[in-house]
Amino acid sequence: MHQIGPILEAHPRARQIDTDAYSEALDALAQCGISCTICADACLSEMHVQMLAKCIELNLTCADSCLAATRALARIGFQDGGVVRAHLEACRTACVACAEECERHGEMEHCRLCAEACRSCEQACTTMLESMMATT
Amino acid sequence: MHQIGPILEAHPRARQIDTDAYSEALDALAQCGISCTICADACLSEMHVQMLAKCIELNLTCADSCLAATRALARIGFQDGGVVRAHLEACRTACVACAEECERHGEMEHCRLCAEACRSCEQACTTMLESMMATT
Amino acid sequence: MHQIGPILEAHPRARQIDTDAYSEALDALAQCGISCTICADACLSEMHVQMLAKCIELNLTCADSCLAATRALARIGFQDGGVVRAHLEACRTACVACAEECERHGEMEHCRLCAEACRSCEQACTTMLESMMATT
Amino acid sequence: MHQIGPILEAHPRARQIDTDAYSEALDALAQCGISCTICADACLSEMHVQMLAKCIELNLTCADSCLAATRALARIGFQDGGVVRAHLEACRTACVACAEECERHGEMEHCRLCAEACRSCEQACTTMLESMMATT
Repeated sequence: MHQIGPILEAHPRARQIDTDAYSEALDALAQCGISCTICADACLSEMHVQMLAKCIELNLTCADSCLAATRALARIGFQDGGVVRAHLEACRTACVACAEECERHGEMEHCRLCAEACRSCEQACTTMLESMMATT
Repeated sequence: MHQIGPILEAHPRARQIDTDAYSEALDALAQCGISCTICADACLSEMHVQMLAKCIELNLTCADSCLAATRALARIGFQDGGVVRAHLEACRTACVACAEECERHGEMEHCRLCAEACRSCEQACTTMLESMMATT
Repeated sequence: MHQIGPILEAHPRARQIDTDAYSEALDALAQCGISCTICADACLSEMHVQMLAKCIELNLTCADSCLAATRALARIGFQDGGVVRAHLEACRTACVACAEECERHGEMEHCRLCAEACRSCEQACTTMLESMMATT
Repeated sequence: MHQIGPILEAHPRARQIDTDAYSEALDALAQCGISCTICADACLSEMHVQMLAKCIELNLTCADSCLAATRALARIGFQDGGVVRAHLEACRTACVACAEECERHGEMEHCRLCAEACRSCEQACTTMLESMMATT
């Protein structure tokens, strides 16, 4: 999303963060959230939906988790490091579980793409967590 | 967000929608949601935050509205046209109100950029609503 | 939820609203949101989940709609009447669609209870919309 | 919320959980979410809002965190214990940070009540986490 960088740069406290790293992480979180929402819906339209119930549940929870992490991370003004880290960790946990489940159904293109989005988001959470450790 | 198109194409019911139009709309909704979240937070860090309370409230409500509209629109499997339209209309209303308020503070770059994102989202909602009217 | 009333009363602008009516509406919205979330999940665990895909989709969208309406309504400080009304209308539309679908599966207790929650929420939105018309 | 218990009981997999404990936890999460949303808005209407910017940010993040934890917990059908635990832990972290900040402004009734809701939610998360440890 091309607008995240510029608006982060315009935040009065932008200098306290690495805006490029934040932009990339927020983009990965948003991509994962929308991918999981669509994948859950696509699974619901499959003939063998009963085999996909767990996948749908993990998709839905991962989408909600991405939202909470996105918003916690985007609030850079008076950021509480512990709170942000806890949400990145929760999100990474959801992404890993969702990716593993989607990878089991990788013959369906929506699950294959959703797993990719979850793995990118997992990586973004890890990168962000590592950089937060380094600066604390 | 480059992944929305491909995953929509992979949905079992993709042929029922114009995936390009949906991708653009979902992208505009996501951009607006994150822009409003960041703008609310940026306003909270401004010295004259008291003058920006209404702007913050509209930012927050617009972000929540974008989320609800995003998810309603992304669920294409068994879509209820009336439900989707109502959420696009609510989102457009929130976008217009938020854009007007942000435009009053356009000297702040985050408000200027947020107003742009709201106007793009307003346009995306209008385009989607018109195309839904045409097909119903 | 017993705490909504007191915290609304403690809001600096509480005198601008009918806190009892707002408390009731917020309670109905919250009940509906959680009921829809649980009903979607319960449907996913049913043997004949394939028959329930539309119900699940409407449940999920109704839950997201309740959230957006809850938050728009709860922000009483600098409330934009048009924005709140649009979200109450969208929520009412989602509640009616979800109630009608759940009522088709009323032999399942979770759908029967969810339909009740949706009908209560529909009524709460209507009451709130009527009172907002009266005061505008 | 009096409807959570009955609808949980009606879930096909209700026997796998302690529905009373889940109902109490979901109620505490919902109360905290709405309390934080209202407290953020009340803070925005205070004269000295500039002193409350951190409180508002924590309120908003805690509300989003409660939502993600509510939904993760409410999806009992194919629940992934690790995912639920991570979200309860993130929510507890947000509740503690938000309660501590609100307690600093306990002379404002909305912050005092919000801190109470956060502490109740913190306790609910802890209780649920302990019972999940015991059964795993």
